Amino acid sequence: MPPAPTLSHYLTGLRQRTPLTHCITNYVAMNSSANALLSLGASPAMLHAIEEVDEFVSLSDALSINIGTVSSPWAGAMHCAARTANSHNTPWVLDPVAVGATTYRQRLCADLLKHRPRVIRGNASEILTLNGIANPGRGVDSTASAEHAHAAASQLARGQRCIVGVSGDIDLITDGESTLRVTGGHALMPRVTTLGCALSATVAAFTAVAEEQPLEGTAAAFGCFALAGARAGTKAEGPGSFMPAFLDALYQLTPQDLDQHLSLELINAL
Amino acid sequence: MPPAPTLSHYLTGLRQRTPLTHCITNYVAMNSSANALLSLGASPAMLHAIEEVDEFVSLSDALSINIGTVSSPWAGAMHCAARTANSHNTPWVLDPVAVGATTYRQRLCADLLKHRPRVIRGNASEILTLNGIANPGRGVDSTASAEHAHAAASQLARGQRCIVGVSGDIDLITDGESTLRVTGGHALMPRVTTLGCALSATVAAFTAVAEEQPLEGTAAAFGCFALAGARAGTKAEGPGSFMPAFLDALYQLTPQDLDQHLSLELINAL
Amino acid sequence: MPPAPTLSHYLTGLRQRTPLTHCITNYVAMNSSANALLSLGASPAMLHAIEEVDEFVSLSDALSINIGTVSSPWAGAMHCAARTANSHNTPWVLDPVAVGATTYRQRLCADLLKHRPRVIRGNASEILTLNGIANPGRGVDSTASAEHAHAAASQLARGQRCIVGVSGDIDLITDGESTLRVTGGHALMPRVTTLGCALSATVAAFTAVAEEQPLEGTAAAFGCFALAGARAGTKAEGPGSFMPAFLDALYQLTPQDLDQHLSLELINAL
Repeated sequence: MPPAPTLSHYLTGLRQRTPLTHCITNYVAMNSSANALLSLGASPAMLHAIEEVDEFVSLSDALSINIGTVSSPWAGAMHCAARTANSHNTPWVLDPVAVGATTYRQRLCADLLKHRPRVIRGNASEILTLNGIANPGRGVDSTASAEHAHAAASQLARGQRCIVGVSGDIDLITDGESTLRVTGGHALMPRVTTLGCALSATVAAFTAVAEEQPLEGTAAAFGCFALAGARAGTKAEGPGSFMPAFLDALYQLTPQDLDQHLSLELINAL
Repeated sequence: MPPAPTLSHYLTGLRQRTPLTHCITNYVAMNSSANALLSLGASPAMLHAIEEVDEFVSLSDALSINIGTVSSPWAGAMHCAARTANSHNTPWVLDPVAVGATTYRQRLCADLLKHRPRVIRGNASEILTLNGIANPGRGVDSTASAEHAHAAASQLARGQRCIVGVSGDIDLITDGESTLRVTGGHALMPRVTTLGCALSATVAAFTAVAEEQPLEGTAAAFGCFALAGARAGTKAEGPGSFMPAFLDALYQLTPQDLDQHLSLELINAL
Repeated sequence: MPPAPTLSHYLTGLRQRTPLTHCITNYVAMNSSANALLSLGASPAMLHAIEEVDEFVSLSDALSINIGTVSSPWAGAMHCAARTANSHNTPWVLDPVAVGATTYRQRLCADLLKHRPRVIRGNASEILTLNGIANPGRGVDSTASAEHAHAAASQLARGQRCIVGVSGDIDLITDGESTLRVTGGHALMPRVTTLGCALSATVAAFTAVAEEQPLEGTAAAFGCFALAGARAGTKAEGPGSFMPAFLDALYQLTPQDLDQHLSLELINAL
């Protein structure tokens, strides 16, 4: 395999372009997702009214859809927004929260996939479910390791012609041919809610500045979270002080950090 | 009266079993409730779509319903979820936020009581209202002391055959026969939003591991908040730094803390 | 011009009266708005069900309406609440988030203006749009300086017979005749989500204790944010640690701080 790519220019680009990132996300994650985007240098917008999502998607540089607290009116808005994003070639990210938990979520995700997300981001359990492997869901907690989901992620990426990012102790980002493996983060991260949701929104912002290289753009987002998470972990005394420290770390992160301090490997997809 | 019970094994049990705690709660409290549960060691899930609540309640170990920002579709989901929980004998907690403020809330709570909550948690004003004592509500702020509400809580517990927990300077948890009195916390706590809501979610998680002893399980949740609140108060410089310190303290709390450092008294109910 | 007014007595009054401040606001801002009000000394209540808003507005001392994540049922509740507030002479504040972004928002704000807000608070871009100046919106970020919006704010204030507050590096609060200019805050503030929304809620609380002097009451709210923001900025290491420090600073603020440390100027409106 060739060496892993450098990712610093994507963070440089994000801060120069401040991509307007439209988030249709869950209630729990709205504040932390907006703050993660602002801390890193993107411009968040949270709105979901069926009367305006099409118009707003047309103004946006990227879209992130997260089904965490979905209900019927929100599902309708997600469809409209995803369809418009697809027809405008605006990159959009699907975060299939707890897709294994209920048939309602499985149907919704199956429908949203028709609008061709540029990236799917989830934990191993969610990616396994999305790929059709029976895996009884249990909320948003992953019950399968990210490595174990590598084959499913690769299959899903090839089948959907998109990038699939799997969060876990080790993160995997794949286009079905090549996989980038990101190591970092901190053991406190699973004890803090909505970090994965905020990562999905951040992936969307990066895809807006890495249009031709969505695999690398997605890896840059994962890399920022891995580095900022590790740094926040050294400062935090628990899950409560972790989040402020994490947002500070995103803000303080330099592009050079991504090239010099991120543990990133390029491997073959499975 | 016999001595107060030991509560440490409930926290040990919660961390071993990580109960899946389904929360149908208000928008303000979702993030802090999820973080409180994660910090302590439970597994939160926030979802409310009428299409999936029955299915999800069947997977859950406990349910918490909080009416803070309720509207019509949410009220429908609350009814479904509470009914299913009751029919599955899954413990559920009712948090009747500001029930005294509007007739809408009073009717909703009257209906929800039919589905037999395992625990009702509120402030003195809310418990007094729920027990039928005229008490003009004024948002979520308590205008009556917890002690003053002891008689109302005891009556309500006997009438509903449930546990009633009253938050205040001194907390009271009663089954209508015996009352546990918890002292602790910190003067900053009323200046931080949604701590009471997060406590209700935490009570739900504890009832999942204290099925035969809901009085003690509820007291364990109150005890965790009393101890973590007191510790956070010594670190905080105001309401802003209180919440991160509080979540850290929940995370750092040991089961032994509940037996060794909690001020807990067993008294007769009124 | 005469010297700028003293504002300390408004903060004294707010802490004595703890005005019940009804917020119909966006999902992102609910928690931070509630915490800002509690930290400063007011009493927040977040609720929006069409079945109860009229009844609750009648109990409230002030109302804040923020359209950030509006959808159809929320728009209906906003109309009812604003109309009731107007008919009861209860002061209410309009925060026209991203009004320039979509026609849906423009129509909604045009309708809400009929119910005569006591104060309109926005960034320069929003105020320019509201005043009918073509200004393509771009989410909640301001693309025009607050000074540049002075003329638009003055026109809008005269036309609507209300106070208009414009947030920016320099804040302007005007009744169309006189303008108060507030300087302060910190460069991190645009990197933290929902500070503007929380300010609107705080303006509402102050209008409840400054009924005869809404210009000064609004300036007091802006002044608290300017002072607390500057202090939080000296403590914060980034956007994450800013918010806890900001809430602490609101809590620690004394009425005398407003008279002794706030940079406040009285100038002619444009």
